[in-house]
Amino acid sequence: MTKIYLDNNATTPLAPTVAAKITEALGFWANPSSNNENAKLAASEIAEARRNLAKLFNTRPDSVIFTSGGTESNNWIIHSAISRAKNRISAAKKPHVITSCIEHPSILEPLKVREENGEIDVTYIAINPQTGQISPSTVLLAVRPETCLVTIMLANNETGVIQPIREIFREIRQKSIILHSDVAQGAGKLSIDLADLQADAITVVGHKFYGPRSGALVLGPEFESDLEPMIYGGGQEMGRRSGTENTPMIVGLGEAARIFLADGQQIENHLREIRDYFEQQLKIHLPTAAHLVHFQQSPRLPNTSSVAFFNYSPHSCDLVERAQTFSASTCAACHKNECSPVLIACGLNFATASKTVRFSFGRQTKKSEIDTVIQELVQLCM
Amino acid sequence: MTKIYLDNNATTPLAPTVAAKITEALGFWANPSSNNENAKLAASEIAEARRNLAKLFNTRPDSVIFTSGGTESNNWIIHSAISRAKNRISAAKKPHVITSCIEHPSILEPLKVREENGEIDVTYIAINPQTGQISPSTVLLAVRPETCLVTIMLANNETGVIQPIREIFREIRQKSIILHSDVAQGAGKLSIDLADLQADAITVVGHKFYGPRSGALVLGPEFESDLEPMIYGGGQEMGRRSGTENTPMIVGLGEAARIFLADGQQIENHLREIRDYFEQQLKIHLPTAAHLVHFQQSPRLPNTSSVAFFNYSPHSCDLVERAQTFSASTCAACHKNECSPVLIACGLNFATASKTVRFSFGRQTKKSEIDTVIQELVQLCM
Ligand SMILES: Cc1ncc(COP(=O)(O)O)c(C=O)c1O
Ligand SMILES: Cc1ncc(COP(=O)(O)O)c(C=O)c1O
Repeated sequence: MTKIYLDNNATTPLAPTVAAKITEALGFWANPSSNNENAKLAASEIAEARRNLAKLFNTRPDSVIFTSGGTESNNWIIHSAISRAKNRISAAKKPHVITSCIEHPSILEPLKVREENGEIDVTYIAINPQTGQISPSTVLLAVRPETCLVTIMLANNETGVIQPIREIFREIRQKSIILHSDVAQGAGKLSIDLADLQADAITVVGHKFYGPRSGALVLGPEFESDLEPMIYGGGQEMGRRSGTENTPMIVGLGEAARIFLADGQQIENHLREIRDYFEQQLKIHLPTAAHLVHFQQSPRLPNTSSVAFFNYSPHSCDLVERAQTFSASTCAACHKNECSPVLIACGLNFATASKTVRFSFGRQTKKSEIDTVIQELVQLCM
Repeated sequence: MTKIYLDNNATTPLAPTVAAKITEALGFWANPSSNNENAKLAASEIAEARRNLAKLFNTRPDSVIFTSGGTESNNWIIHSAISRAKNRISAAKKPHVITSCIEHPSILEPLKVREENGEIDVTYIAINPQTGQISPSTVLLAVRPETCLVTIMLANNETGVIQPIREIFREIRQKSIILHSDVAQGAGKLSIDLADLQADAITVVGHKFYGPRSGALVLGPEFESDLEPMIYGGGQEMGRRSGTENTPMIVGLGEAARIFLADGQQIENHLREIRDYFEQQLKIHLPTAAHLVHFQQSPRLPNTSSVAFFNYSPHSCDLVERAQTFSASTCAACHKNECSPVLIACGLNFATASKTVRFSFGRQTKKSEIDTVIQELVQLCM
């Protein structure tokens, strides 16, 4: 019996039409820049994917730049903002970046390396432990003349808490600062409008919303400055990201966007219904003191429940490993003396963080499956 | 009727078993770092691909680092060598890079940007117009105390000429210099042994040898230094290249490697037979003064013919555009007053370069197709 998959924030399966489109696009193998029939097909499929991404985020097709994934997109925007700043500010001063302390490693690690090199200064905005959120005024207070980038994720992968990006970015909009949000966890679960979000750039990751292992950096419709490329060469992607286009991956990402454009509201409703049902059933079947759903009162992704199980005596890793009916995640290496740094940064104490499991539901999750999972959780935690 | 495809140096179709493997691997969708059945399948398929690449280039599996393609691999090795040098040499001096003037734009462009920034010095080694080759002694003479990287391609994509990499690298092997070769055009056409080549690192590109749009940086078995990552994050690829692994692309690349491991000699023989037949037939059917095969006496890729057609009066772009039976390439934007900078760098004059067409044959090319192409070429050029 395969386990019920409740780890959709780690990665999702491919939607059947995404898999079909990728398989078909393996046939559009020509170099899209070449001058032959197959190349024209490839180029037109890529153009359609670009239009779908643009529509999904309400921006222009030429603001969509395909990348190998979210990790590349995040590293790139950091590289780009810092390179631009070095041309602008005096060499005596360091470029300054504002981020949160709960970003994905693909934001935190490249920043740390440059901070340790002495290349940049970084302000890590703390999280309000009541809400799991950042307060816009803290970000505003951190802005300096040398600030070149503010990068804050739309929704956290572990807690699911949604950050007030619009309110943060509205306050600090100015030409010399790139406003970036990693929306890896939001895309395909919520509708995201780049103009409304006030973002200059967002990171998009296909495999978090039933698309392939590829991604994009998508620019706001008003973004005017030029992005410094991180990868130079043949000048593909309007000179912004060189490398022969990966037609099948791009086409698959376009199809994932199209699906959400067509069915977004229904998808969001289904995820929320399943998640709410799970949390209700937990409440009914487990004693109040035995569990805690983190940040339940905050705006959250519709598919994520981060839950501490206090009655389960060892570490939550054991719980997840012992579970027979489902797979979920604990967001930390499975050593008994470790727990998720993100949960700690959100104000949880070690005891609570180390007993926390992340359940991330998917488009395919059924209520009957939730019943099965609840039954096993009750057995494990009573 | 679809045209006979003689542009395999631009890109190749997928081998049928590569396409089948990719399609199958779309089902291994789990995150290879997760702890579930599907994830274990994905991880084991990736491990097999890594072993196949390692075997193909005679190195260790943990020396194979998967990337999004050749352009990323080339940009990365440049980034890495320069970062390492900055830690080693005094800030008053600039890191120095040696390359050839006929490299792919994914080498020349990132170098140019850093040279123009004032970040590095670059020596561009000239090509001997008699042979299309670099002479090892010129490279040796260019080495300085600040030299951190020598990057020379194994075979040129336009002329097909093979460079004496072993002889070049043997002379300058020393700890502080990374010896890199872009083998994009060699892999899958010739057997390549990293130890024999004396290279620290090579760039590999799947779509040049019937694999997918993905690539690798492959390190020599003796390479000991640590590569500075260009893309940081979750620590995938042994901490060297972060980003959730693109299982289907990696598996496809592994299959492309396996095919050449199994059938390499046969593939090479077939390519050479077709290419030689083409050049013989040209000689038989066109007057000697009407055409010239460039660098026919030099060691060349078995599949590439770079040919100037002197009797065809406008630019070779017109010839290629007018051709009804085949598609080939002219390696330059189709403006009448342009021609390939690589051919000029190889010592051809403008008149000859602008009349040159590149024919790159494939595993699927048949002698009967060559007959058709020759017939049309004779019509066009008489
Ligand atoms: C010699 C050489 N190096 C590098 C590349 C770039 O690789 P990619 O197409 O994966 O970006 C190519 C082909 O485009 C090439 O011919
Ligand atoms: C919030 C967030 N950003 C970025 C990434 C990285 O994207 P990728 O898996 O494409 O490297 C992930 C997932 O891994 C993520 O959850």
